Amino acid sequence: MDVFIEPIARLINEFSRLPGVGKKTAQRYAYKVINMTDQEAKEFADAIQGVKQRVRFCKICGNFTEDEVCDICKTRDKGTICVVKEPKDVVALEKLHEFKGVYHVLHGVIDPMNGVTPNDIKIKELLLRVGEGEVKEVIMATNPDVEGEATALYIAKCLKPLGVKVTRLSRGIPIGSDLEYTDEVTLARALLERKEI
Amino acid sequence: MDVFIEPIARLINEFSRLPGVGKKTAQRYAYKVINMTDQEAKEFADAIQGVKQRVRFCKICGNFTEDEVCDICKTRDKGTICVVKEPKDVVALEKLHEFKGVYHVLHGVIDPMNGVTPNDIKIKELLLRVGEGEVKEVIMATNPDVEGEATALYIAKCLKPLGVKVTRLSRGIPIGSDLEYTDEVTLARALLERKEI
Repeated sequence: MDVFIEPIARLINEFSRLPGVGKKTAQRYAYKVINMTDQEAKEFADAIQGVKQRVRFCKICGNFTEDEVCDICKTRDKGTICVVKEPKDVVALEKLHEFKGVYHVLHGVIDPMNGVTPNDIKIKELLLRVGEGEVKEVIMATNPDVEGEATALYIAKCLKPLGVKVTRLSRGIPIGSDLEYTDEVTLARALLERKEI
Repeated sequence: MDVFIEPIARLINEFSRLPGVGKKTAQRYAYKVINMTDQEAKEFADAIQGVKQRVRFCKICGNFTEDEVCDICKTRDKGTICVVKEPKDVVALEKLHEFKGVYHVLHGVIDPMNGVTPNDIKIKELLLRVGEGEVKEVIMATNPDVEGEATALYIAKCLKPLGVKVTRLSRGIPIGSDLEYTDEVTLARALLERKEI
């Protein structure tokens, strides 16, 4: 890549670290930055640094926050906790404007193949929260994959002695999809977990 | 987008300015930055600012450079000038390691529909360079679209009185493509500009 002068090569290299960005796309992004005004480039750079300086994790639920405790924990019904893998899952659920309870971000799922044990994610913190007594229901909203399922079952087992209701998101055929094109595992699961109408 | 706290929303917004980046992709990029170390984020931000602070245009050819004159102008044969629309076209040609001459970046093409006249791009500078007498050939390498062609023809006309040889990149069927799928304009042009073998 010696066709680029050093500062441009460096910026292309930085953009290449972003997920799904190859050399070609990184080049396009770099050209865009070169064509920005000094002010625009400064704002871009400040936004990157700002996110590192200002974003931390809520000490209660582990979600992104600027304060010690996030707005959701401050204001919402603590009777229901929705357990998710990552902060971005909170965003996905919040967009629905449907759930009125609070969250608990595990920051990972149990994954022995990659050396992630129950102690490596925020399960202990969840048990402590539930142990305080205010919680009526814990909704497991980990991904419907092997690790997500295993984590949900492990946590459900841990919560059992505490006498709290544990539920999980329903799995089945996505709304608007076609039986013919639904993968076999999903279809088999949908049949197994069929509901009376 | 009030599901995001301000610093994250701001960074997503900055990433959305990049070409071809929508909200969803910008979110993925922002999450990536949040998960970077402080050092990595600092390097990313510095690279953005660095490109604005250190990259300028070569006073001879208009290509990107860190110095007053770019490395290509400093070291290469000045007898042949390849004229391109933008600095990124220089990169595309340099990757070939084929051309041994120097460049002239127009920083645009004549485009009356969008108010770009010959005076708005670096044509005068090209004529001055050729006027100095060292130049034997000018290769027009503007894009093979209406504006690129018009610009090439306009410049060729201006150069005529200076007695310099003016050529342009050949147009035709791309190597490795299929006659059946070649667009009609290209095919017609390839027929018209056929060469003896």
